[in-house]
Amino acid sequence: MRDFGPVEMARRNYIFTTIRDTFRLFGYEQLETPAMENLSTLTGKYGEEGDQLLFKVLNSGEFLKKVNDTAFKSGETAVLPLLSEKGLRYDLTVPFARYVVMHQNEISFPFKRFQMQPVWRADRPQKGRYREFYQCDADVVGTDSLICEAEIIAMIKRVFAAFGLADYSIHLNNRKILSGIAEVAGAAGMEAELCVAIDKLDKIGRERVEEELYQKGFSQEAVAVLAPVLEASERSNGEWLDFLKAFLANSVVGSTGLKEVEEVLSFLTLLGEDTRFLTLDPVLARGLSYYTGAIFEVKVSGVGVGSVSGGGRYDNLTGVFGLPDISGVGFSFGVDRLYDVLDALNLFPEAQNEGTRVMLAHFGAEERKQAMAYLAAFRRAGIAAEIYPDLAKIKKQFNYADKKNIAFVAILGAEELANGTLGLKNMVSGEQETLSLEEAISRLQG
Amino acid sequence: MRDFGPVEMARRNYIFTTIRDTFRLFGYEQLETPAMENLSTLTGKYGEEGDQLLFKVLNSGEFLKKVNDTAFKSGETAVLPLLSEKGLRYDLTVPFARYVVMHQNEISFPFKRFQMQPVWRADRPQKGRYREFYQCDADVVGTDSLICEAEIIAMIKRVFAAFGLADYSIHLNNRKILSGIAEVAGAAGMEAELCVAIDKLDKIGRERVEEELYQKGFSQEAVAVLAPVLEASERSNGEWLDFLKAFLANSVVGSTGLKEVEEVLSFLTLLGEDTRFLTLDPVLARGLSYYTGAIFEVKVSGVGVGSVSGGGRYDNLTGVFGLPDISGVGFSFGVDRLYDVLDALNLFPEAQNEGTRVMLAHFGAEERKQAMAYLAAFRRAGIAAEIYPDLAKIKKQFNYADKKNIAFVAILGAEELANGTLGLKNMVSGEQETLSLEEAISRLQG
Repeated sequence: MRDFGPVEMARRNYIFTTIRDTFRLFGYEQLETPAMENLSTLTGKYGEEGDQLLFKVLNSGEFLKKVNDTAFKSGETAVLPLLSEKGLRYDLTVPFARYVVMHQNEISFPFKRFQMQPVWRADRPQKGRYREFYQCDADVVGTDSLICEAEIIAMIKRVFAAFGLADYSIHLNNRKILSGIAEVAGAAGMEAELCVAIDKLDKIGRERVEEELYQKGFSQEAVAVLAPVLEASERSNGEWLDFLKAFLANSVVGSTGLKEVEEVLSFLTLLGEDTRFLTLDPVLARGLSYYTGAIFEVKVSGVGVGSVSGGGRYDNLTGVFGLPDISGVGFSFGVDRLYDVLDALNLFPEAQNEGTRVMLAHFGAEERKQAMAYLAAFRRAGIAAEIYPDLAKIKKQFNYADKKNIAFVAILGAEELANGTLGLKNMVSGEQETLSLEEAISRLQG
Repeated sequence: MRDFGPVEMARRNYIFTTIRDTFRLFGYEQLETPAMENLSTLTGKYGEEGDQLLFKVLNSGEFLKKVNDTAFKSGETAVLPLLSEKGLRYDLTVPFARYVVMHQNEISFPFKRFQMQPVWRADRPQKGRYREFYQCDADVVGTDSLICEAEIIAMIKRVFAAFGLADYSIHLNNRKILSGIAEVAGAAGMEAELCVAIDKLDKIGRERVEEELYQKGFSQEAVAVLAPVLEASERSNGEWLDFLKAFLANSVVGSTGLKEVEEVLSFLTLLGEDTRFLTLDPVLARGLSYYTGAIFEVKVSGVGVGSVSGGGRYDNLTGVFGLPDISGVGFSFGVDRLYDVLDALNLFPEAQNEGTRVMLAHFGAEERKQAMAYLAAFRRAGIAAEIYPDLAKIKKQFNYADKKNIAFVAILGAEELANGTLGLKNMVSGEQETLSLEEAISRLQG
């Protein structure tokens, strides 16, 4: 787990603010849920591996009280429920589903919420993977309108434009298209296996993908039918649409998926969004078991960082908590990966520095007194300002300002004190001017 | 533990933003530390009760592996270190101290940091006390300049002024004054007992306070010497200064404390801050064992909420982690209590609503298409906007806007569609106008 110092915090806040402003512009409202949830809420939602990766919190007070000899001898499975009733949030989706069910009578649907909070996973730490990391999720539940899908794409575009990110691609698919492809190949219900194999096309090549399909139980005939899907990685969006219209003609579910994709595209046009950043990707899967409609994934080119955002539509998020048939669609930004991308492409603005704009340096106690009056005046003018608090050598004071990346130092010596001025030094250019307080304020506000 | 819905989040964000802006204006930089710390970092820092209230996290993987029969039979004290190596952050001070020691070679002292993060305590939940709550701390370490104390008072005043809070008092004391008072009473080193007793003056009256002092081992003579301190709850700041100057004349430590208080007052004057909200309170103690200089506490009148902010100077925060002799001073805002105060006094601004400013309602599919173009235009103008995503009865659409407290609804019907206009309804006044898109934008930006 990591500490974030001032520079990292300023950069992370820049990312959070950009995302939050976009969510709000689109009418999403913020929600926060507690770090700890009942283990009964969390377990069984993330697969067996997920259950292993949940951080469990020891019951407070006499935590061994309920653990008798028999339980202790039976081992961890028997002991765990006696030791621990709470776990740390593993993602933002399950707590959101729990919230929707719990507050269903106060919520006016469609409910558009966003959430930006840390989550915890007991993963083995490795490069780019942390045990504590932030997720930024936006979801809308209680409507199946495909306007929501179009708006998610518009939000991603807005965030990336704000970051100055130009070379990226929003991959779009629909679970129903995947189902249709499997159906057409005579392998209805096997879209999961299909996707896992096809996902490796880039890495292992077509021949070995076909091998894997055979191993997974696809017939020779099925693989032959799939051939045009496998060879088509370079189709344009229009070519894909034409191809799928024919390929899926006999699949009801596939054709429905295709119509949904076309409707999302037409809503994007109504919103005035060009579709330049959009890539139809009929073999994009992600957490397939979960999604029932649109599937998104965003990839940035040329930085060797995986997907930075993704999501999709689901039809039964809240069913497991007793509220069935609530359709929703959501997506998530990966803050750590976005950080790495912006860092690699040198896209953090210099002005994201949230720190002090001017530090007051002084040659002695009398100068420090005058400096304090100037300090207060700077702050009243909204300028982030500080004074070197101790009586110290001027070099030491400048070193401090330099290390803290403070843009300006205002210097008070005997002469400035006598003349009612201050020396304002630009720490980047090295230039220094003698100014009145008012002149300094207007220079610092500029 | 609590969920925070959209309204609470908007209000909490208002509090956080106000405090953060002030911290930044004064040159404090943000820091974040992880939710989990090693238990060895946390235990022994908060007293025995604090150790009990730490949330401990079960080791991941085979958590029982190290727990053998012998340990199990010896009970919780033997088992705990085998089960759990990490705990949840109990406050922001200890992680900050750990950070300073760990990063001492990168930090340029004096180090001014602020931190706004949740902390967790396994307290029995009760009204106004939660197991998860936010703290907002600012500290400066590596200087003993009393300018820092004056700036803390100035920051508190700025935050309260921004909130529109007028009826409050910043209580100021100095540990050395307390030491001096005990010394003068012939009870040197007993300032802790003295304060616990005197703290109850308002509640139990002077007679019973004197009783308690006897019980704590103060002599009859000591209590007689203390009489003028006990009877003096209504002294003005000037009267206290005069009184203490005489009372502490023979105590070196007491006189030093008094001089420090006077210096803080003079720095406040240099900053142009009136001292109207400041109350000298020579019996204010707070976590006494910890503070070595100034002690602050802020009380709001007439709302029945305890202290909303407090802090003080310490000389050995980092000593326990191996870095001695670092003096610092810090304070903390209690977000939950501030929330209760602002709520009770009706001081949350209406405009703290971070939600949608205008919702587009439509009478059918064609109108919805046009509405989407307007929607995009609103957002391009920076206006938080959303569209009712489904084709639904207009009443249902209005109900949604109403429940979500959206200020304006833009209505698209057949007539508006034909004329290229929209109907803009103010949801508070009920007024409705027919406007062009440009007119609507300028109305909504106003």
